[in-house]
Amino acid sequence: MIEIMIDLQGGGKAPLYDKIYKHIRNEIADGRILKGEKLPSTRLLARNLAVSRSTVELAYDQLLAEGYIEAEPCRGFFVCDVAELYRLGVRNPSGSEKEKPQPRECWKVDFSPYAVDTADFPYNAWRKINRNILLDDSEELLLAGDGQGEYELRSAIAGYLHQARGVNCKASDIIVGAGNEYLEILLSQLLPPHQSVLMENPGYPQAYRTFCNVGYRVMGVAAGSMGEEEARRHNPDLIYIMPSHQFPVGTVMPLGRRLELMKWASEAENRYLIEDDHDSEYRYRGKPIPSLQSNDRQGKVVYLGTFSKSIAPSLRISYMVLPPKLMEQYRSRCGFYSTTVPRMQQEILREFIQTGQFERHLNKMRGIYRGRHDFLLGELKKCSWVRHVSGEHAGLHLLVQADTALSEEEVCRLAAERGVRVSGISQYRFGDPVEKTQEERFPVLLLGYGKLGEQEIRQGVELIGEVIEGYCSHRTLHSLQSP
Amino acid sequence: MIEIMIDLQGGGKAPLYDKIYKHIRNEIADGRILKGEKLPSTRLLARNLAVSRSTVELAYDQLLAEGYIEAEPCRGFFVCDVAELYRLGVRNPSGSEKEKPQPRECWKVDFSPYAVDTADFPYNAWRKINRNILLDDSEELLLAGDGQGEYELRSAIAGYLHQARGVNCKASDIIVGAGNEYLEILLSQLLPPHQSVLMENPGYPQAYRTFCNVGYRVMGVAAGSMGEEEARRHNPDLIYIMPSHQFPVGTVMPLGRRLELMKWASEAENRYLIEDDHDSEYRYRGKPIPSLQSNDRQGKVVYLGTFSKSIAPSLRISYMVLPPKLMEQYRSRCGFYSTTVPRMQQEILREFIQTGQFERHLNKMRGIYRGRHDFLLGELKKCSWVRHVSGEHAGLHLLVQADTALSEEEVCRLAAERGVRVSGISQYRFGDPVEKTQEERFPVLLLGYGKLGEQEIRQGVELIGEVIEGYCSHRTLHSLQSP
Repeated sequence: MIEIMIDLQGGGKAPLYDKIYKHIRNEIADGRILKGEKLPSTRLLARNLAVSRSTVELAYDQLLAEGYIEAEPCRGFFVCDVAELYRLGVRNPSGSEKEKPQPRECWKVDFSPYAVDTADFPYNAWRKINRNILLDDSEELLLAGDGQGEYELRSAIAGYLHQARGVNCKASDIIVGAGNEYLEILLSQLLPPHQSVLMENPGYPQAYRTFCNVGYRVMGVAAGSMGEEEARRHNPDLIYIMPSHQFPVGTVMPLGRRLELMKWASEAENRYLIEDDHDSEYRYRGKPIPSLQSNDRQGKVVYLGTFSKSIAPSLRISYMVLPPKLMEQYRSRCGFYSTTVPRMQQEILREFIQTGQFERHLNKMRGIYRGRHDFLLGELKKCSWVRHVSGEHAGLHLLVQADTALSEEEVCRLAAERGVRVSGISQYRFGDPVEKTQEERFPVLLLGYGKLGEQEIRQGVELIGEVIEGYCSHRTLHSLQSP
Repeated sequence: MIEIMIDLQGGGKAPLYDKIYKHIRNEIADGRILKGEKLPSTRLLARNLAVSRSTVELAYDQLLAEGYIEAEPCRGFFVCDVAELYRLGVRNPSGSEKEKPQPRECWKVDFSPYAVDTADFPYNAWRKINRNILLDDSEELLLAGDGQGEYELRSAIAGYLHQARGVNCKASDIIVGAGNEYLEILLSQLLPPHQSVLMENPGYPQAYRTFCNVGYRVMGVAAGSMGEEEARRHNPDLIYIMPSHQFPVGTVMPLGRRLELMKWASEAENRYLIEDDHDSEYRYRGKPIPSLQSNDRQGKVVYLGTFSKSIAPSLRISYMVLPPKLMEQYRSRCGFYSTTVPRMQQEILREFIQTGQFERHLNKMRGIYRGRHDFLLGELKKCSWVRHVSGEHAGLHLLVQADTALSEEEVCRLAAERGVRVSGISQYRFGDPVEKTQEERFPVLLLGYGKLGEQEIRQGVELIGEVIEGYCSHRTLHSLQSP
């Protein structure tokens, strides 16, 4: 039996049992007490240290629980074999390193197509609902709740989707989730593995990358050309489309094409169309384009939508409408997943929709975005470097083809040097680069106006103009000087 | 050219352009206007209907946008080929069906091991933080934010984990996500596909099912036997463990076993240990058991934790600490994912942790749960039908082996008939059923006490006793009567 000497005066104000526990633990870990050695009995150690026996018992209990020692009935406590293993490897020295958060990017004008207006968020309404909900001390709201999302919220979403997007669905067809990517990942668990998916190119990069991450083979067709012919040529399992407003090109899929795809999907059991209706709320001319799902009579469309664009990106609430067969799969395979959306957020959103405040907010935002859209169009009309504008009348960005010999990358880089963030359409391409036609050599820029005021829009367009025209005059000058 | 007659008086108060649009749309959809037919010019139709030309233009624009008609330059508007496709298939009749939400289960006493206390939620603190955060009209809080979770929240979590669980990590090692299952799915995207994973059986059903859903091969070893020997025998890629408190058995993995597993993992590049530290906050005797991650010197442990048990299940905030290699994978493959946790919730939680309120709440809850734990243990000591209690001193449930000839299923069923929800340990088994030893034939019940008051605990234990003893006396009586 070993003898144990512990300095119970040092080590600050820690409880006595803790000092005993730590001392013995360190002796074992450092190999000073060897495996198989017998510890003194609790009675003996208590007497030697002049502490109560229960203090030593507490220390031994902890050593037992963590596996430093083991008890043998009627024989006492013995040291386990841990020291040698303990000395394996080297401690990772990065643990104590000081970190700083990433500095935020700072742009004079940010034409990001993903940006949304935040200044007009309905703070007061949101605060009021929030306060009322928390006022109740409702225990119900603390429990995990329904994995699909609360029934009442799904019911409110079903009502909105039916009225605004013509979607045929009941609350039980909807799954509420923390963002489209999460829902796409969830969807992949309802389908056989290793699906192939066809999508338009350029397309929505997040969808492309999510499909790659779940092990899908992603094939592309030129944006605007998706239809029966391409479907039959590539023969995918799934087709991912944004029929009401393709991102980033901004085209609307004509009804004929939609019905062709629906027919194609109906010809085999496991074919589905994934309709991402991401910014369908914002259309500034005529009526909303009905969803593809509204034409679905055979359970072939998976419909995805989000509140990121219509309320706020930080809300993290999206929804997926599943056809009956996939909903069956969800119930049997994924019904055990807890929801990914906090119950209080669900409750706030439900109230916001059911009291009509969501619709009022949408109408207000539609007006604000229409104003920015029209103003940007007006500014672009004045510019001689603009060859062509497309993707207008909907969404939160438009496309501008620029008349310049600069490449897209050069325009974006030079604009960034002037404090303007702008992206070119090639950044939304996936897969191997394609040979560009003469026409396609002109840069196509995405100008998102979601969060820009008129002054910023004007300044941004001017600065891009300076980049393009500055280059022209520089080149002209250069060519004049060196004939 | 066809002629179009529209009743502009009927159809309620809809705008004129809408009536024109709908009329033509329906004529096309129903096949009364055939493909290729030319529509009247806007000028002509406007004159015929006695409306302004811009009204007709609006209607045609909508038909064009949706793809019912197409414009041929200098020739006019022609009907597209959609009618035939339109008539495909039958409309799903379930669309208009009335639905009711699922009725909630109602138990006299619910011994669910997943239940947590909600009555002692810090409503006031939560409300106050919530109010202060919303007061600011902070636009920042509406933006998507950091995909890993906000730096400041991760920093607060890192501080807590270091102090309370001995976890060695920096804010940049942490990913915040909407629940453990989401984080496990995310993890699967950082590892090669088709991994095999070894876990203890019985084990945590949600983890088992999530691994199955991501296509992993899951192998089981008897709970309490996980160690180097089993690792070498099964040779998995991953080992999933709950070393501080195994669910549902409640064992603590001894240090020797932990270090063995660490050594095993360090021998091949793609081997990892997944440590799920799900209810480590609740330990009622001695000090907390340090995390496995605290012994990790070679970047082999993925550490998972959640605020579901320590604050509220509906919060949907979990965290994952990744070793450097997997964090690199995350950044390159999954960095584009938006966070799954709303920014406002993140901000509330950060404030709750940083102001010390989380720790105070934990201490309070630990006291409350300890009281329930001790009370339940005391009640069980009085029961003659209790053969053995295990898994005590930690977590929110304990295991009771009952002295009865009834099967586990029968005890649970009979208890349910009396309004008591209780589960048997076999419900947490996965894979093929194993041959039970004589000892294992006695039912083992999981008694969760997280949300039960003393009266409910006493009543629940009594009712289970009635089930078991009622059966005994019934059987004795029966055997007396029929010799």
